[in-house]
Amino acid sequence: MRTTSGWRAAGSPATLRRASLERRALRPDDVAVRIDYCGVCHTDLHALRDHDDAAGRPLVPGHEFTGVVTETGPAVTRLSSGDRVAVGNIVDACGECPMCRAGQENFCHAFPTLTYGGTDRHDGSTTLGGYSREYVVRDSFAHPLPAGLDPAAAAPLLCAGVTVWEPLHALGVGPGSRVGVAGLGGLGHLAVKMALALGATTSVISRSPDKADDARRLGAHGLLVSTDPQDMAGARDGFDVVIDTISAPHDLSPYLRLVALDGTLSHLGHLGPVTVETLDLLIGRKKLTSAGSGGRPATAAMLDFCAANGITADIELLPSARVNEALDRLRHNDVRYRFVLDMSDLE
Amino acid sequence: MRTTSGWRAAGSPATLRRASLERRALRPDDVAVRIDYCGVCHTDLHALRDHDDAAGRPLVPGHEFTGVVTETGPAVTRLSSGDRVAVGNIVDACGECPMCRAGQENFCHAFPTLTYGGTDRHDGSTTLGGYSREYVVRDSFAHPLPAGLDPAAAAPLLCAGVTVWEPLHALGVGPGSRVGVAGLGGLGHLAVKMALALGATTSVISRSPDKADDARRLGAHGLLVSTDPQDMAGARDGFDVVIDTISAPHDLSPYLRLVALDGTLSHLGHLGPVTVETLDLLIGRKKLTSAGSGGRPATAAMLDFCAANGITADIELLPSARVNEALDRLRHNDVRYRFVLDMSDLE
Repeated sequence: MRTTSGWRAAGSPATLRRASLERRALRPDDVAVRIDYCGVCHTDLHALRDHDDAAGRPLVPGHEFTGVVTETGPAVTRLSSGDRVAVGNIVDACGECPMCRAGQENFCHAFPTLTYGGTDRHDGSTTLGGYSREYVVRDSFAHPLPAGLDPAAAAPLLCAGVTVWEPLHALGVGPGSRVGVAGLGGLGHLAVKMALALGATTSVISRSPDKADDARRLGAHGLLVSTDPQDMAGARDGFDVVIDTISAPHDLSPYLRLVALDGTLSHLGHLGPVTVETLDLLIGRKKLTSAGSGGRPATAAMLDFCAANGITADIELLPSARVNEALDRLRHNDVRYRFVLDMSDLE
Repeated sequence: MRTTSGWRAAGSPATLRRASLERRALRPDDVAVRIDYCGVCHTDLHALRDHDDAAGRPLVPGHEFTGVVTETGPAVTRLSSGDRVAVGNIVDACGECPMCRAGQENFCHAFPTLTYGGTDRHDGSTTLGGYSREYVVRDSFAHPLPAGLDPAAAAPLLCAGVTVWEPLHALGVGPGSRVGVAGLGGLGHLAVKMALALGATTSVISRSPDKADDARRLGAHGLLVSTDPQDMAGARDGFDVVIDTISAPHDLSPYLRLVALDGTLSHLGHLGPVTVETLDLLIGRKKLTSAGSGGRPATAAMLDFCAANGITADIELLPSARVNEALDRLRHNDVRYRFVLDMSDLE
């Protein structure tokens, strides 16, 4: 075993406390990664909310991080010590089911191994996340970080970034596409940047007109205020793709009405059961879909695309010791647009 | 006004009784159609169930019929007396909204005028349907019936046919596509015929193995029994498109699980509100959509396609005087696969 340090949940309600952590000894296809930067994702809040010390499963959040390879197992050929790498929210999968064979390990029929809170496929241990100084990962799930991408601002690409990239890419967004992005947070601001770089006419859809300056600064072509009936009526059937990044449960009807004939509403993340009125789909043959996370090929393509187009997240960088403050502010949506933790204070 | 005869709802519960009906005098862009054959659609059952004599709106069902033009208004140039025509479930629309301009009059923002139970856009009268010997219709909503299509067996194409054609076409079904058709009734059997003619590998999904012979006779490549867990598990992620023609409310999850990565479940008709589990969409980025009826260009394209491929409905032809018997048997799904009424007994 290897020893490192990180931020582990303790108490009720759970807060994060610095702790010594064990990482597994390298398997032949493992690499050890010194984590430099780790993004703070909404999922981390949910995991902390649901954490129960008594259940005996340790929780170290963090599933979008960048760092440098420090050691490689004997079977590793595609990475070497000193390589910059990035890791997202899955670190293994069965590799044999149709989804894995299609490069969609995020949809693995045998369920992918999550970066934290997952169960290691070999030793059954609970995976511990990236709020720590070191991670040991199967080499094929460590993505080379392209040159030119700032490693701190690139960290959120590994979860927020690929989550918005997959639907934009799968739905064929490109020049001439009309894209609406509902919600301007960690996911939404990256969706706007990527949709613009793909050549789409891109609008932000937000509850409040306050976001107009932000939308303009990101380069968006317009802002629709979702609480303004006139705005919403004027944009009816106006978008080929609406990317809905609103994390709280909400009525999908107003957003479906914005979708054009044969267009798609893609909501991101796991909303649980949603109820839709069939007529909202039928009138205009509109499609409802959902997306979350990404497979390895999409992650690699997304990183290349971001490097080519100078896209990273707008971040607020904090020393990792301020992680509880970051989580608290994220709980209140007080961040534009993503917190990233600097792990160098864990030395 | 013109006088004809037809089958009008009366009593409670409503049954159909022969009655004298008035049709409007021809407007400049109207044609009069002698109705020869009219299909019996599930919608007709719903309309009869909901009919209330006391509400004062007359009900004459029927919205998929074929016949011959007998007279034309002075502004009509595209049709002449003696032309074979077919009329579906809409007979007018605003013509100006984006959906109408896109040729999707069925999604008209100002609501299309329904063939029966609708409100005429000019005189405010309630439209009376095709269970009658004559209909007066705006010429642009009377579709020329291609030579070679049997007018009795072609009647159901105008509602059931275009309802399955639109999603197959919009979803790009063609050679190499894998299509599943859930439910083998009026819509389902036409979906199977069209999907096969489009070159798709096509399977029937049915609750009961009894349909195996029917599926084979239609040329389907396979039958999945939806009540057999092994059958359903084996077909997981197996279809690019699933056309769900089941008219009763039902859980969509088992059908979503049959859809392949980036594939689509299209359910037909108006199911009302449906609840879906987000994860059923997310895992595989599956799309849910709905379809019903068709615009004028799609209707014309569908008729041409059916003529070119020898596709009509499998029908049971009855004299129109047996309409109540037909409705009763349809209520019990006792028809393979569509009743068509022969209107010549109304002379």
